[in-house]
Amino acid sequence: MNAPRSVLVMNDENVYADAIGAGHGLQRAEVAALAGRVAEFHRALRAQRGADIGFPELPYDAALAGQVRTAADEIRARCDNFVVLGIGGSALGAIAVHGALNHPFHNLLPSGHAARRGAPRLFVLDNVDPALIAAFLDVVEPELDRTVFNVITKSGSTAETMSQFLMVRDLLRRRGLDPAERIVLTTDPDPKRSLLRRMAQDEGYAAFPVPANVGGRFSVLSAVGLLSAAVGGVDVDALLAGAAAMDQRCGTADLDANPAARYAAIQYLLDGKGKSISVLMPYSSALRRLADWYCQLWAESLGKRQDLAGHDVFVGPTPVASVGVTDQHSVMQLYQDGPFDKVITLVEVEDATLGGADVPICTGDSEEELAYLAQSTFGKLLAAELAATRCALRDKHRPNLTLRVPRVGPAVLGELFMFFEHAVACSGGLYGINPFDQPGVELGKVYTYGLMGREGYDAPRGAGV
Amino acid sequence: MNAPRSVLVMNDENVYADAIGAGHGLQRAEVAALAGRVAEFHRALRAQRGADIGFPELPYDAALAGQVRTAADEIRARCDNFVVLGIGGSALGAIAVHGALNHPFHNLLPSGHAARRGAPRLFVLDNVDPALIAAFLDVVEPELDRTVFNVITKSGSTAETMSQFLMVRDLLRRRGLDPAERIVLTTDPDPKRSLLRRMAQDEGYAAFPVPANVGGRFSVLSAVGLLSAAVGGVDVDALLAGAAAMDQRCGTADLDANPAARYAAIQYLLDGKGKSISVLMPYSSALRRLADWYCQLWAESLGKRQDLAGHDVFVGPTPVASVGVTDQHSVMQLYQDGPFDKVITLVEVEDATLGGADVPICTGDSEEELAYLAQSTFGKLLAAELAATRCALRDKHRPNLTLRVPRVGPAVLGELFMFFEHAVACSGGLYGINPFDQPGVELGKVYTYGLMGREGYDAPRGAGV
Repeated sequence: MNAPRSVLVMNDENVYADAIGAGHGLQRAEVAALAGRVAEFHRALRAQRGADIGFPELPYDAALAGQVRTAADEIRARCDNFVVLGIGGSALGAIAVHGALNHPFHNLLPSGHAARRGAPRLFVLDNVDPALIAAFLDVVEPELDRTVFNVITKSGSTAETMSQFLMVRDLLRRRGLDPAERIVLTTDPDPKRSLLRRMAQDEGYAAFPVPANVGGRFSVLSAVGLLSAAVGGVDVDALLAGAAAMDQRCGTADLDANPAARYAAIQYLLDGKGKSISVLMPYSSALRRLADWYCQLWAESLGKRQDLAGHDVFVGPTPVASVGVTDQHSVMQLYQDGPFDKVITLVEVEDATLGGADVPICTGDSEEELAYLAQSTFGKLLAAELAATRCALRDKHRPNLTLRVPRVGPAVLGELFMFFEHAVACSGGLYGINPFDQPGVELGKVYTYGLMGREGYDAPRGAGV
Repeated sequence: MNAPRSVLVMNDENVYADAIGAGHGLQRAEVAALAGRVAEFHRALRAQRGADIGFPELPYDAALAGQVRTAADEIRARCDNFVVLGIGGSALGAIAVHGALNHPFHNLLPSGHAARRGAPRLFVLDNVDPALIAAFLDVVEPELDRTVFNVITKSGSTAETMSQFLMVRDLLRRRGLDPAERIVLTTDPDPKRSLLRRMAQDEGYAAFPVPANVGGRFSVLSAVGLLSAAVGGVDVDALLAGAAAMDQRCGTADLDANPAARYAAIQYLLDGKGKSISVLMPYSSALRRLADWYCQLWAESLGKRQDLAGHDVFVGPTPVASVGVTDQHSVMQLYQDGPFDKVITLVEVEDATLGGADVPICTGDSEEELAYLAQSTFGKLLAAELAATRCALRDKHRPNLTLRVPRVGPAVLGELFMFFEHAVACSGGLYGINPFDQPGVELGKVYTYGLMGREGYDAPRGAGV
């Protein structure tokens, strides 16, 4: 693949003491001093790349991309609704792609509208809340014969997703529809590991793989995220090309050249200075869901118990999703005047318009007090508010970074995914934990099994149900 | 008003040392020891109630509720789209009400569908992102003559909302439609304070008041939140009655009888023990947006700089919105194995179904491994996961509370609003700050004015635009 150049620009000037003061800012030498450790983890990542660690290789799987495109074209031709059944890493990537690259009111547009790009309506059902499930059926059940479901669970046993699968399969059968024609699976390719894969074989479902060396939260650029993207009309080749461009930029451990490594080092150092809350605040409604994806990536990768020679240490910054300008009127008061426990990453989109056309605020006369708005555009107002927030945070000694991208598009989104994935992998090294497991959620699963009466599991004491 | 009984039950057993250990749990005596201070703030609140502090009186304004209902009926009869133009406290309440009490896919349902309750499509435009604005126009502009806009800004000068107002007024005029027939204002009743109120007089818009003693984040039970609720078909009398029930329950300073005061005391004490992140995690998709509302209420009210005899202190817990079961597959790893810096408030809905009908997972046979799911319902699975999470958090020494409500309905939502509002007011007293102002966001506003070229304002240094 002939990857395009990476276009993401990271501006970290407002994390340093010369911008925000020595009380809360870093010295550049502190970042530089991490170079040796970063180089060590970088070597380890390279050594495991393609073996234990699969995410950096995903952008280069042209064969998979071709299969996804072919399947998506076939699905688009025969459905009006495409539904992802998945949760966590099997949902958040799809939601982020959909939020960023499809029309914000995709499902409300008439099916022939140009902005729909010929795509069906898209749904991601990532909860088991019975009210949500019933409401979803209100909308989709009347069109069940024009609906395709993509069931995504790497393990093939996730309780939430498998219960949704059971419901949908049952519903299709009762309606006399063939589940094999309306369900596509995305799961571990090994039938010994995935019950769902065995069912694919037994019941004839089409199925895509989740590579064994790619965990859920790193899987957006595998079939997990790509199929719904392609069904929605997203250029998955551009998405992958952008990710590849960032991956190549992250091919060095040089902290001046590898922005993901530098981001990891800065975040790690600031956490060490008590800034344990990492806010991602895109100034773009379209990127709001990327921030949710980031929260899982950051929390599940870095929130870990470390066993240091029998002594437990509990680490991990807390990621928080925000969106500009909206949250200036919500949490910004706390970010600017509250405790010095945050680092804020702003995402700036140079051309924040839909397809290049900025929206004038007013074409006619206005009241004098409003002239400063009336003569401007929404794009300029958004840009001014971002710049104002960056300066206000700086002047209040609040560390902040800006990730600047030229626009929101598939290549840029691919870059952002790969940027954060490389950053979190590097962070895992700095924290001394394994960023690729999630042992902490096992207890809750075991308790759920017990409460659901699954054979071999006991309910927890005092559950009160 | 003959208020119904309050139905919210707070279970705080998992914040105490006997449940989660002395390392992270509270002693009950610590809570009891705050009784004197709580009683003092409670007296102050009662003294200012109806004077400086207006929020507790909102549920009792039957005259306003009647006016809102009448206006809503008239609006419902003549529009297919109802659009709130507002941001922060002028949007988050409406979004929370809509999310909780209307069908989750309200705008996708055919207009005649029973679950639409005869309501128009509902939109809340709470950003100035030009891509979002343009996309919104794609959807609404073709039906402009069947659209009503509710412009909400207490000050009557909020840049984001006024720019949207200018755009809409301009658009209506250019289309030959009378803005006075299609724009309803909600703003300060005093024309000396609100430019928008003066425009209401000059241009003939219908207008509702935001009481001077009610700030944006406390205004959901005023016309700010009630009009869109009523247009959506929500029973605003029940919403207010529920809020009144909780207000009356909060009429005592007794920490055993006033759950909001007890909640405030617990959160304050846990913050003092390093649990500075307050997560609100409803196990209900419908209440997800309530958590966003909570984030503004908590952050903007409590995130403050205190001047203690010339020495600045920066206080305020960081609120975080989560949703169960979804986030068990996202941030829960961090919540259970990461640093001990969080208190988690779970919201349990006893009957989580839509209208009382639980959804069976499967009506036929299933694979043996999935029998524990297939024979159950989504409601039971949700309840089991909530109980499992509560027990797992407890067993990992993580402080957590549960707010239990019988169902999601208008009275319950009213209770929850009033519960958190009373809790944050009491918290302000404990932190020694004014929970009703938001001075920290002024600098950003001034910088924005400067960057937009507003007369009398300078751009900040180094803004880079």
